[in-house]
Amino acid sequence: MTPYQLHYWPTIQGRGEFVRLALEAAGAPYVDVAREPAAKGGGESKLMRDLGDAHNPRPSFAPPFLVDGDVVVGQTSAILLYLGPRLGLSGSGEADALWTHQLQLTVADAVVEAHDTHHPIASAKYYEDQRESAMERAKDFRENRIPKFLGWFERVLQRNPAGDTHLVAASLTYADLSLFQLVAGLRYAFPKATARALAKAPAVARLHDNVARRQRVHDYLQSKRRIAFNQEGIFRAYPELDG
Amino acid sequence: MTPYQLHYWPTIQGRGEFVRLALEAAGAPYVDVAREPAAKGGGESKLMRDLGDAHNPRPSFAPPFLVDGDVVVGQTSAILLYLGPRLGLSGSGEADALWTHQLQLTVADAVVEAHDTHHPIASAKYYEDQRESAMERAKDFRENRIPKFLGWFERVLQRNPAGDTHLVAASLTYADLSLFQLVAGLRYAFPKATARALAKAPAVARLHDNVARRQRVHDYLQSKRRIAFNQEGIFRAYPELDG
Repeated sequence: MTPYQLHYWPTIQGRGEFVRLALEAAGAPYVDVAREPAAKGGGESKLMRDLGDAHNPRPSFAPPFLVDGDVVVGQTSAILLYLGPRLGLSGSGEADALWTHQLQLTVADAVVEAHDTHHPIASAKYYEDQRESAMERAKDFRENRIPKFLGWFERVLQRNPAGDTHLVAASLTYADLSLFQLVAGLRYAFPKATARALAKAPAVARLHDNVARRQRVHDYLQSKRRIAFNQEGIFRAYPELDG
Repeated sequence: MTPYQLHYWPTIQGRGEFVRLALEAAGAPYVDVAREPAAKGGGESKLMRDLGDAHNPRPSFAPPFLVDGDVVVGQTSAILLYLGPRLGLSGSGEADALWTHQLQLTVADAVVEAHDTHHPIASAKYYEDQRESAMERAKDFRENRIPKFLGWFERVLQRNPAGDTHLVAASLTYADLSLFQLVAGLRYAFPKATARALAKAPAVARLHDNVARRQRVHDYLQSKRRIAFNQEGIFRAYPELDG
């Protein structure tokens, strides 16, 4: 089987991490192209060239994008929509696949908001130049948005007729993996606020731990393939934004 | 055929408008539930009750959500993913449907950013209380983000092997309808900045006009079913944010 090609920034988890987790949890063969040496066709400049390829009739707006033979698909949630049934990570049937996607889109909304706590004015400007607005936005995110998002996922788990171990029926989906990543990121960026919110969302906290404990995920998290959280990614640990 | 039930805020276009446009353009029967009189089961309080329904095992995070018989689906882009093939608005085959969705997700990203120009700090706070940050964010949106988004859609149109009239192959998809709505909203909120960006994206401007001219869309836009843009929606005309 030809490995999937994931194209994403080589030094951050970022949005690409949601795709990496799905591929890893399924044990799917893939190449994280931009992390390969330049001599092997990798590197960030290759990523930028591919993104700007004028011959691609269906270009992506931004990384990540996935190549699978003739298929090129961008947008994290669309990539997962494509991979879901192929990797057995979107439940069974159309209703489960749609619900999985709806959950993913809500994780994606939370991810945008997490990013905007440190960049509320402009992605292209330094954090230091928008720190005052960031302090205000982060306060609202901590006090209102983190509890709202995690509270909603808690309700989803509690109402799952198949039990509160998974978001969709009784098996692992990419929504579980993405919620794991959201919780991990929030804990890194907002340890105090996230601990408070998780105290009221025990099933979400358990889901995070259960996902981390799965053999393939565990092995991935221990490997060099897992890039550590850092101050260039979506989730950034600025202590002044927690509280 | 039982009409689709769209559940959304009754006084704004908002995110619900992307769903309304798909239903209208396809001539599909639907009820805009919260806009019905309270005596007929409509109204905003009904919307809030449905959203908070503790018996729904798959609750939506926020409006809009769509009910089609046993199916309840939330998240604008997931609703369109569901409706696309049913309304003949996602091209033909899996590749077109995926590309349509990828385009939709990029429109959705632009919509979040448009919203955040007037609410960069907190959705629940008044615009007036975050106006200073809004001025800064809007400047970046005008100068960098509007041109980037519309420039990307222009490239997509120009590279479409079937011609620059539609985003996906040669027929109308929900991505075309959503791009129409994005352009209409940007023109309302940022008339000067959008005119400048559209001067460099002529195929996007033509697509907007072509969509508006389609018989069903035209009839809809002239009808009372189309809520006018207003200062409660996602796109708001604050002259100080344009320039």
